[in-house]
Amino acid sequence: MARQGINQIREKIEYLAIGSELLTSSYPETNSLFLSERLESLGLKIKYKAVVGDRLEDIISALRVALNRSRLIFISGGLGPTADDRTREAVSRVVKQPLVFCPLILNKIKQRFAARGRKMTPSNRKQAYVIRGAEILENTNGTAPGQWLETKTHILALLPGPPGEFSPMVQKLIIEKLQPYQNKYVLKTVIKTSGAGESWVEDRIRSIYCLLPPELELTILASPGEVQIRLTLPLKDINDPARKIFYKIKDKILKLLGEKVFSTDGQALEEVIGTEFSHLGGRTLACAESCSGGLLADRITAVPGSSDYFLAGLVTYSNKAKSQFLGVPDRLIREKGAVSREVAQAMAVGVRKRTGADFALSITGIAGPGGGQAKKPVGLVYTGLACPKGVDVTENHFQGSRRQIKFQATQKALDMLRLKLKKFHKE
Amino acid sequence: MARQGINQIREKIEYLAIGSELLTSSYPETNSLFLSERLESLGLKIKYKAVVGDRLEDIISALRVALNRSRLIFISGGLGPTADDRTREAVSRVVKQPLVFCPLILNKIKQRFAARGRKMTPSNRKQAYVIRGAEILENTNGTAPGQWLETKTHILALLPGPPGEFSPMVQKLIIEKLQPYQNKYVLKTVIKTSGAGESWVEDRIRSIYCLLPPELELTILASPGEVQIRLTLPLKDINDPARKIFYKIKDKILKLLGEKVFSTDGQALEEVIGTEFSHLGGRTLACAESCSGGLLADRITAVPGSSDYFLAGLVTYSNKAKSQFLGVPDRLIREKGAVSREVAQAMAVGVRKRTGADFALSITGIAGPGGGQAKKPVGLVYTGLACPKGVDVTENHFQGSRRQIKFQATQKALDMLRLKLKKFHKE
Repeated sequence: MARQGINQIREKIEYLAIGSELLTSSYPETNSLFLSERLESLGLKIKYKAVVGDRLEDIISALRVALNRSRLIFISGGLGPTADDRTREAVSRVVKQPLVFCPLILNKIKQRFAARGRKMTPSNRKQAYVIRGAEILENTNGTAPGQWLETKTHILALLPGPPGEFSPMVQKLIIEKLQPYQNKYVLKTVIKTSGAGESWVEDRIRSIYCLLPPELELTILASPGEVQIRLTLPLKDINDPARKIFYKIKDKILKLLGEKVFSTDGQALEEVIGTEFSHLGGRTLACAESCSGGLLADRITAVPGSSDYFLAGLVTYSNKAKSQFLGVPDRLIREKGAVSREVAQAMAVGVRKRTGADFALSITGIAGPGGGQAKKPVGLVYTGLACPKGVDVTENHFQGSRRQIKFQATQKALDMLRLKLKKFHKE
Repeated sequence: MARQGINQIREKIEYLAIGSELLTSSYPETNSLFLSERLESLGLKIKYKAVVGDRLEDIISALRVALNRSRLIFISGGLGPTADDRTREAVSRVVKQPLVFCPLILNKIKQRFAARGRKMTPSNRKQAYVIRGAEILENTNGTAPGQWLETKTHILALLPGPPGEFSPMVQKLIIEKLQPYQNKYVLKTVIKTSGAGESWVEDRIRSIYCLLPPELELTILASPGEVQIRLTLPLKDINDPARKIFYKIKDKILKLLGEKVFSTDGQALEEVIGTEFSHLGGRTLACAESCSGGLLADRITAVPGSSDYFLAGLVTYSNKAKSQFLGVPDRLIREKGAVSREVAQAMAVGVRKRTGADFALSITGIAGPGGGQAKKPVGLVYTGLACPKGVDVTENHFQGSRRQIKFQATQKALDMLRLKLKKFHKE
């Protein structure tokens, strides 16, 4: 690919997802979000996205459209071992290059099976075919290797459909293949907040709208329990004075939102907490959950290295488990109910005492859809935090599905902990 | 539109989303999922999906592609009042029909503003233009009306982009416009399996491929821990003999896959287990997790009503917690290691005994990315199941990210339980 083509390629990027399931209501197409995010880190963006089913003629037709209007085409899916995986064949036809058998790939696939103590099945043989001229992209997370094909006019990247295989391969491409296409001068930040609604955030930062230069893109993105503000500014060059405006606006937003902001570098709340614990050195955490049913422990342990500070999580779903494992008095549950401020407090104190952790979180509530009453409706959730200096409890009224209520409950608990750790740090 | 065109239209449905934000990483495109779901209720499906930004030339180019390959085109977005809303203009150009000013729409928009005590802004005037020949689709949830345009060859539905306006308008179209295109006779099933890889499944069912009629769509979809086989067959009418073939093939597949199949109605593994427990009546479940960190409990409690059978989940991340809460002997952990067959067994037996549950699951392993060794690599996971008749443990070697290993561990544990409950049921 001639260097003079770089600008053209930058501006003509297409993403094509292949898979009949992506045309149904059951499968949201998510790979392109990851791809966009990684491309944005290079100052690049996708111009067209398309989704097509598994039929060979449909794939070919979608590829022809893509070749016609784009220069760099990311294709995901259809690289599996089964009869409905036909991306290799379709690309081979439209670029008029034959498929070549590659014994090296076959060996890798065989080794992969052997490592799991299994034998390769005959259908995997298909995955060892490569379009002539294409470079093989190794797949450390599955059997389907990717392919990188540069023709005189186009670049085609064939990538596996499963997100767990697609994402690492894209990440590698970003580092190894796509650097020359980088649009170096883009400033970007993602400000994540918790404990505030979308309209509160919007009202709060409205005063800076009149300061925004037209090229600065500000978007607010809300999901239950979290609101993000995304700022993106392409610069003319490294000395572009707009750079200063960007940081000025970012600072203003941070000041206006205060301690609602938990990260400015893309970290999730549980990761922020992981970082705090690593700074504290040796302090420990435990949790006791009822309605969130293990999601709090799951989020805490999603962070690599969390075993350094996380001791235990007790999912005390039944009342008996609350007494037995946490020492919550039976009488308290009878008198106040399992979903009450008092029980949340006793759970946090109980799990802290029994595990010996420095900090302990608790959650009890009604995640729905059943189990709500007039006095204690679905969405009522108490979260508790016990620490060396005492115990706090909050009362919350969340809305949404069972899943959304579970998530918001854990978000609130983690946010209490974040704020406490921040103070603890200062003292 | 002549009636003979109905079949053609049914098979050539496209969805085109317009909006630059949909090409960024921040905005998943969700309207098409709703549209697919509603179309599926009529036995229809989308054949192509496309996303394009707000530039007029890009919209026109995407519309030309769509007109070329499809007959019924749903277009969402670009109907707002601002300068970057250009769908009306683009459609008008490609179908070669002028935009006509419609005072009725303008009045409606004015009324809408007045009802909120506000004055219409001049930019909204733009929304009162209709493509000549199009029918206006009223928007009760926003200012942008939709348009329904039937030409000699195509149907185009212009719909507003915000999901809260898009969805009700689609729902109305389903009832008022799309009934004639209903494909009443579509047979569909989703066969979900666990404990087998994609290529194993494919090889296993390969023998039925030669029996498949060309209209029967069979797709295999794999994700870590789960492989799905989806069968779809449109029938000519209710007496179509192909119906028998469908059920024959479904039965053959079920026989070939045997007990690997856990559901044929879309249920997740945790839901299948929920159903089993509701049949057993009064039997109870508990779990003890290490590397899966709460995800097992989280999945079990994702099922509404799980509090009827789920007593408690103990996330014993530290060794001390394993001894303290589950009674795993310190010596055993020292001698065999926390990740061992023996500790998995002791965890399952321990949590069963302490909670008094009938069935108890356990998971211990190395989720990575750190913590692996030559003898105990990342991905090594033991799962245990204790029940009235004894205790089983499996050794597994999973691959993938931390998240994927956590998920596969829970999938394996739930699958052990499913198979045990099935037997238990029969006895």
